[in-house]
Amino acid sequence: MTLSIAHLGPPGTYAEQAALLYLNWLATSTGVEAILCPYPSIAQSLRAVAKGEVQVAVVPVENSIEGSVTMTLDTLWQLDSLQIQLALVMPIAHTLISCAQRLEDIKTVYSHPQALAQCQVWLERFLPTVQLIPTNSTTEALLQLEQDLTVAAISSQRAAQLYNLPVIASGINDYPENCTRFWVINQGHIPVSRPTTLERASHTSLAFSVPANIPGALVKPLQVLARLGINLSKIESRPTKRSLGEYLFFIDIEADASEPQVQSALAEISPFTEILKIFGSYKVLPINTHNRVVSG
Amino acid sequence: MTLSIAHLGPPGTYAEQAALLYLNWLATSTGVEAILCPYPSIAQSLRAVAKGEVQVAVVPVENSIEGSVTMTLDTLWQLDSLQIQLALVMPIAHTLISCAQRLEDIKTVYSHPQALAQCQVWLERFLPTVQLIPTNSTTEALLQLEQDLTVAAISSQRAAQLYNLPVIASGINDYPENCTRFWVINQGHIPVSRPTTLERASHTSLAFSVPANIPGALVKPLQVLARLGINLSKIESRPTKRSLGEYLFFIDIEADASEPQVQSALAEISPFTEILKIFGSYKVLPINTHNRVVSG
Repeated sequence: MTLSIAHLGPPGTYAEQAALLYLNWLATSTGVEAILCPYPSIAQSLRAVAKGEVQVAVVPVENSIEGSVTMTLDTLWQLDSLQIQLALVMPIAHTLISCAQRLEDIKTVYSHPQALAQCQVWLERFLPTVQLIPTNSTTEALLQLEQDLTVAAISSQRAAQLYNLPVIASGINDYPENCTRFWVINQGHIPVSRPTTLERASHTSLAFSVPANIPGALVKPLQVLARLGINLSKIESRPTKRSLGEYLFFIDIEADASEPQVQSALAEISPFTEILKIFGSYKVLPINTHNRVVSG
Repeated sequence: MTLSIAHLGPPGTYAEQAALLYLNWLATSTGVEAILCPYPSIAQSLRAVAKGEVQVAVVPVENSIEGSVTMTLDTLWQLDSLQIQLALVMPIAHTLISCAQRLEDIKTVYSHPQALAQCQVWLERFLPTVQLIPTNSTTEALLQLEQDLTVAAISSQRAAQLYNLPVIASGINDYPENCTRFWVINQGHIPVSRPTTLERASHTSLAFSVPANIPGALVKPLQVLARLGINLSKIESRPTKRSLGEYLFFIDIEADASEPQVQSALAEISPFTEILKIFGSYKVLPINTHNRVVSG
């Protein structure tokens, strides 16, 4: 059986790069073969899994500079049947791609808003007068380059190679430690093999809504986790979309949901929440700086 | 003296509409005259205040559907000298603007990513095959309409009137309760008049970083607030941009920072934080559904 993996396309995006890492790791560690299926948005790649068009989606969750990818969190909350199987953290290095002869000739820079934001300081220093134009993906920005020598795009080194386009500047992200966390997501009832050497999951992700207008409503669930010694690695609020000031909270804890104290914590938290969803327990696939999965 | 007010431009954006509400309220309640100064980004309107180019900026903080405007939070954290003077909550109603004769003729829709996201369901239902293209502001999207009858933009009713463009559909936002909260921000040492009938501020906004890798580091400050009966109306995590998994927390509390129990809370919270910044105490200007400030 060949596994199909949805990701934000077209080919050349960072999401495709993460999907490829997962595909290669799968082939090496389990012998399962897979193909990549690009989708025009993150929401559509997750919906493709929910509808059974593909078995797996690889989606960005969080960038170290720009924060949560809210489209991923909101869609995961809406689609009931999905579960996180694995996480991977990938270093991000942006390159400026253009057919221009010199930096001074560039008048317009296209890229995904997150990539533009991650290169703000570099752009203000070296291209202070250019117009910045957002695109739906870093790869889509490359479509603007054809035959226009005053246009540049911010994308990955890999995308430049893939489309045979000249790199003008490399590593232009403002923070060198730039990296993005991705989740590998499938339908909950289909088990996907985990890294074999590490049976117990290191992280569990969940989300809950709390009753509106109750002082300290969020504190109670957090107190339960703190008292039971369960470390929180992430907390993010998202609007319920009903009315301003009503939130959902997305929480990552550093434990497996099958551990007894996590089970107790969830049972204790539940009465303080309106809706509580567990998105799964998973391991983080170790990736080295050369963008390869460390053997394991 | 004439006050200058920075906002995200060009004219016709929702930020300009909020700035106009503030300008009108200022003229009516204090007799102070003001002019509007459009800037190409939210960050640039805030920096204009920090540099003293303008006295005030009106910036979006949070939308009821799409959540926090992270550009505002991140810039406020970076610029030390700014203080929030006032908040206002404005209803948002999106319209589809186009020179096309019929919906079926539309092939491309331009708008700010937040506006595209807020009309997702409507777009999927009525324009399922169109290409969605992001722009830097809802007004910029209107520039795409010229002479192309297959193009539409999502913007406000007011922008359609301002640029004399035809409205194809009104109220196309997926959630009718769509509204955006704005902050009026100036340099901390310049007092700006508050609504005269309401002397005590209703909200205080602050942000802090906590030491990394300490379990329950966030819980301690929240426990202090809960124990002292101070209600939290918002919590938002943002990356420190140093490394993945290190966060700042932006918190809104429903109290004036000059109240004794808030003073105690801040003193108690401070040792648990690395950096603690208070962005000011302020009132919320009441706006009715006709987008007018309710007298007060």
